[in-house]
Amino acid sequence: MDLSIAAAKALDAADPLAGKADQFSLPDGVIYLDGNSLGALPKGVDQRVANTLANEWGTGLIRSWNSAGWVDLPQSVAAKLETVIGAEPGSVVIADSTSVNLFKLLAAALERAAAMEAGKRRKILTERDNFPTDNYIAEGLIRLTGETHELVRVDTPQAVLPALDEDVAIVMLTHVNYRNGFRHDMAAVTAAAHAVGALVIWDLAHSAGAMQVELAAARVDFAVGCTYKYLNGGPGAPGYLYVAPHHLGHCQQPLSGWFAHADPFAFSPDYQPASDITQFLCGTPPVLSMVALDQALDVWADVDLAALRKKSLDLADYFIGLIDDKCAGHDLTLITPRERHQRGSQVSFTHPDGGYAMMSALIAAGVIGDFRSPDILRFGFAPLYIGFADVWHAVDKFAHILETRQWDAPQFHARKTVT
Amino acid sequence: MDLSIAAAKALDAADPLAGKADQFSLPDGVIYLDGNSLGALPKGVDQRVANTLANEWGTGLIRSWNSAGWVDLPQSVAAKLETVIGAEPGSVVIADSTSVNLFKLLAAALERAAAMEAGKRRKILTERDNFPTDNYIAEGLIRLTGETHELVRVDTPQAVLPALDEDVAIVMLTHVNYRNGFRHDMAAVTAAAHAVGALVIWDLAHSAGAMQVELAAARVDFAVGCTYKYLNGGPGAPGYLYVAPHHLGHCQQPLSGWFAHADPFAFSPDYQPASDITQFLCGTPPVLSMVALDQALDVWADVDLAALRKKSLDLADYFIGLIDDKCAGHDLTLITPRERHQRGSQVSFTHPDGGYAMMSALIAAGVIGDFRSPDILRFGFAPLYIGFADVWHAVDKFAHILETRQWDAPQFHARKTVT
Repeated sequence: MDLSIAAAKALDAADPLAGKADQFSLPDGVIYLDGNSLGALPKGVDQRVANTLANEWGTGLIRSWNSAGWVDLPQSVAAKLETVIGAEPGSVVIADSTSVNLFKLLAAALERAAAMEAGKRRKILTERDNFPTDNYIAEGLIRLTGETHELVRVDTPQAVLPALDEDVAIVMLTHVNYRNGFRHDMAAVTAAAHAVGALVIWDLAHSAGAMQVELAAARVDFAVGCTYKYLNGGPGAPGYLYVAPHHLGHCQQPLSGWFAHADPFAFSPDYQPASDITQFLCGTPPVLSMVALDQALDVWADVDLAALRKKSLDLADYFIGLIDDKCAGHDLTLITPRERHQRGSQVSFTHPDGGYAMMSALIAAGVIGDFRSPDILRFGFAPLYIGFADVWHAVDKFAHILETRQWDAPQFHARKTVT
Repeated sequence: MDLSIAAAKALDAADPLAGKADQFSLPDGVIYLDGNSLGALPKGVDQRVANTLANEWGTGLIRSWNSAGWVDLPQSVAAKLETVIGAEPGSVVIADSTSVNLFKLLAAALERAAAMEAGKRRKILTERDNFPTDNYIAEGLIRLTGETHELVRVDTPQAVLPALDEDVAIVMLTHVNYRNGFRHDMAAVTAAAHAVGALVIWDLAHSAGAMQVELAAARVDFAVGCTYKYLNGGPGAPGYLYVAPHHLGHCQQPLSGWFAHADPFAFSPDYQPASDITQFLCGTPPVLSMVALDQALDVWADVDLAALRKKSLDLADYFIGLIDDKCAGHDLTLITPRERHQRGSQVSFTHPDGGYAMMSALIAAGVIGDFRSPDILRFGFAPLYIGFADVWHAVDKFAHILETRQWDAPQFHARKTVT
């Protein structure tokens, strides 16, 4: 691997996705390696939201629920996402938060699993190191429904398949781990789960928008995801959920608000669930956030997802190579797999005691990654707007901070709530 | 009552809230009597959202969770609302949708009710004519938790108190009815519920922002509400919820996402509920919608809520008086109580077959009210931006449409999804 800046620039010149960066607004003097946490601002979102405020809300007022298509946003925005995650038409809605959506799907999946066979399986299988909110949500549902299920948490991703047995109702996993970037083989795990009669729920928060996700081809049952990371929907943008078409109409989610009704505007006194994907909605859609996301998803119309994945892995390989070369001897331990097929689009290191301060110093120097408790430095590579020269300069700055021990100044050790 | 336009203008001239209308952007040629469904756009929201997009998201990126205070929005925005609804400091959060929040509170309230005495009460008491999504949510929770509770729906608001007995766990009511505008006596119903050992959940969707709501003084246990009606937060703006301080830490809501954790950014593997109001959050807050609402709530800083309530009732009395005088003989039946203390800030009529078409014709003429299935014409009076001359002109146009039977043209009978 040629680790020169000239080589990095040559890779950028040959990058088929290089032009995409022009579709984003990024501040000068910043190398942004945290698009896995909050994606960058796509150009055009500002105009779109301003139009919704001034014309649709300000002038159209209540009429815009029809005339501006607000009422259909949960499905019309989802249609743009379906192609990015390999989902069938009509299998996705944008709604609520990822956590709320997971609650809906877990409850519906447990009902579906119970209906598919006599008796009731007891286990929901996940990883201890799954994104915490996913496991918290499962704990909340289990507590609410009387502890009739158990959340079984294995210690490593490799321990998932051996833990599959005929008492597992649901396998609930995140496709790419938020800490170390480990990527599950979605199709293989799904097939293994199905082989013991279990259903799967995948959380796509750290994979959708960074690689091909093939929900239909992998025969996935249910999925949730986040739109504010690689999908660039904006801070706290709504979540989404996927239900395989053959499950629609055969299970019911419990947050049965009016948008989940077969005929919401009939205002009928009794709940009658919609038979299509809208049964997985709940309340009134958040229009401002929805239109921002709608605009942001237009970026994907012409993206070759195979090229996206290749660039993502090449960027990370280049980053790892540079760190190996320039940052050796500073106690950084790579916790992300080196094998390309086992990785998402992020690279993480641990440091025994300086992780937080090192990341703070790096951010102060204009290279934005993030820190995850207790000791992880995390770097994400959003292939639509990060190039090889960015990676080169990021490591150059990091090496300088390590060599000079700049990071050990007191101001870089003062903790904030979120990094 | 002097029903002349001159009298209307004199009332506007003497209105202490008249200046407030300048804080809203309303289109020319429109009289907006649907602020009870979607509030008007407050001036300044556009600039605030534009700043969040360009500077906080675009430039600040992930750093804005700290530097722009995004992480605290659910509480900092709620603080502005607490004074409007008579709630104690720290008793309200902005989050999710009204429906999702009701699900959380119902589950928490049932747990609290069960803990407060030996044994388990079976009934959740409400009205058949409650806003449908509230009853749907209760049905969903009851179904999920194994039908151990029953949703008892009385036929009239007057039937609530007689239905109270010691098998009622929760009284779940909307303060002001969405169809006929009937207003419950919150303090009296709450006291009666407490007298039989039940807890109350009030939905404030159609009251907050149109009158004084005194949650603490009325000793309310729990409340939810909507911010896109009289609170002008924008289409699909986030909901809010209230938990009386003495219940905090004594019951747990089941949508236990990471923002409900005692220490969300510790990413600990097990859920540990926060002991304060943040336990009622779930996932990541929707920042764009939150900042729009935050700006919209600044309108309330100097509003005298007693003056607001008086104006609201005066507007509606004036409207009823004008309709009685100018629209007699057209089969309109007032279904809103004439007694001021029994009303919210809306006035509704039924018409045996022309309701939808009459409202469509009126909207086409620039007077925006709405229609609610099957036969209700609904007019809302947002006291911050509606004046007496507006009411006079609205009825003048309506009378003309009725006299000329303009409404009976085919185009006014074609139904849309939402009105």
